[in-house]
Amino acid sequence: MYFKARYETLKKTWDDHYFECLGKTSLSKAPADFKDAVYYSLQAGGKRLRPVICLEMSEIYGVEFEAAIKLATALECLHTYSLIHDDLPSMDNDDLRRGMPTSHKKFGEDVAILAGDALQSLSFELVASARGGDHLTEYFAYMVGCAGLIGGQYMDIKTTDDHASDYMEEMHRKKTGYLLALSMVLPFIYQKPDISYVEIEKWGINLGVLFQIVDDILDHTSSKEKLGKSTGKDMAQNKLTYVKIYGIEKSKIMAGLLSESLKNFSQFNTSPFFQNLPLYVLNRES
Amino acid sequence: MYFKARYETLKKTWDDHYFECLGKTSLSKAPADFKDAVYYSLQAGGKRLRPVICLEMSEIYGVEFEAAIKLATALECLHTYSLIHDDLPSMDNDDLRRGMPTSHKKFGEDVAILAGDALQSLSFELVASARGGDHLTEYFAYMVGCAGLIGGQYMDIKTTDDHASDYMEEMHRKKTGYLLALSMVLPFIYQKPDISYVEIEKWGINLGVLFQIVDDILDHTSSKEKLGKSTGKDMAQNKLTYVKIYGIEKSKIMAGLLSESLKNFSQFNTSPFFQNLPLYVLNRES
Repeated sequence: MYFKARYETLKKTWDDHYFECLGKTSLSKAPADFKDAVYYSLQAGGKRLRPVICLEMSEIYGVEFEAAIKLATALECLHTYSLIHDDLPSMDNDDLRRGMPTSHKKFGEDVAILAGDALQSLSFELVASARGGDHLTEYFAYMVGCAGLIGGQYMDIKTTDDHASDYMEEMHRKKTGYLLALSMVLPFIYQKPDISYVEIEKWGINLGVLFQIVDDILDHTSSKEKLGKSTGKDMAQNKLTYVKIYGIEKSKIMAGLLSESLKNFSQFNTSPFFQNLPLYVLNRES
Repeated sequence: MYFKARYETLKKTWDDHYFECLGKTSLSKAPADFKDAVYYSLQAGGKRLRPVICLEMSEIYGVEFEAAIKLATALECLHTYSLIHDDLPSMDNDDLRRGMPTSHKKFGEDVAILAGDALQSLSFELVASARGGDHLTEYFAYMVGCAGLIGGQYMDIKTTDDHASDYMEEMHRKKTGYLLALSMVLPFIYQKPDISYVEIEKWGINLGVLFQIVDDILDHTSSKEKLGKSTGKDMAQNKLTYVKIYGIEKSKIMAGLLSESLKNFSQFNTSPFFQNLPLYVLNRES
């Protein structure tokens, strides 16, 4: 009960502030219809998991509110750009995202590519404007670049039948885990630049792996209506998934065990939010 | 004579150091064949105009060498990403760039999109690693984002016959001018964060406009062999160009006048390099 209410409060806080936050960036000076295309994907909704995590971490570690909103918005911009490009015809070729037509379906492929590009630079503009120092931006760039999120996307499109569990795990760690870890670590480094973030980063990456196992399960068991995106596509596109390698039952067991071990992370034994977050990720239906 | 030798010296300095510089970034940890795809576009050559300008500015204003190379490499990474995405089938659909197959022709559209994405985050990683402060990164993001370079690209793909000279000039200022201005201003802000960069930025943007007028002329008068890219495409794609609006002769006169006025910029009256740069841009054949 506490967790759900807290999650909703954090989500509402971000929902109430991100628009104003973006109004102070260069997005306000974009060509008018281009701005619409960028906002279209940002406003499509979703769980807002990354901003929510970032805001909770910011409160725990004492990041001032304005900076926290900027970091949270940077994470959502980055996430949205990765979804727009991931949905493109030459990538996953998805027509539906968060229950709405994908960016390229709505605005054309060329605009979708540019909207994604703009959201990436916007995320860096926001991180820099939070004034956390160059090391923060450098870390952000590392986590979302060719050794991080984009490296994971590359592994995803280059999957072959020869690839197995190790490859898949590295791919999911990078593709999903690095950005969730970033949502944890960004406010942490911002406030505690001299303290090691390694354990928290590891926890965040594993939360991403859990997220991905559940994603793979939902792609098999849920419906388009519930998920707001196409289902059954992983199998159709012969993607490397937990379900493909381990089957549904074993994947569910793995997810349960991972969720349990994340819950017991000692660093969060005074944080009911982070103690309950793995269970939320495990039991989500969309 | 001085100018050509100086240009070649600066170009060689960058050529000799960018590989080592990139080796210290996250690119060294990218999946091996993805790294190859990223390097393919970076190594394809070209004038290296942006690194050259950045290195000369860095020397004039006293930026230490290692930081100067990082900034120069960030600019070339950003430029290369914009070319890769600009060449995509849904954008300009170009098969040839710098005399070689474009990224998507060589590696496929999906890899080309990701290579561009990775080069953008890499450019931010490099800027941040130069340790010029958050305001430097924020400025960089502004100039390449939706109110800058990407905004210009958007205006380009949305050109209609109703658009005229004002629209075209703004488009070229953003698409080409902002990145050349960035090459001037980045080392300047790095070293002189408290001094106004407005005049230098204006000069850089106008240099970009000059570059673009010449580009439009060359697209009509040069050959694929000389340019290393397809020619005559602007007309075929009904692009808004100086030649289309003003005709070849008037475009040549405008370029000559702009080059002359840039030469006389008082702030550069002790810099033979920047005094001669407009003439180089005016008379280039590729």
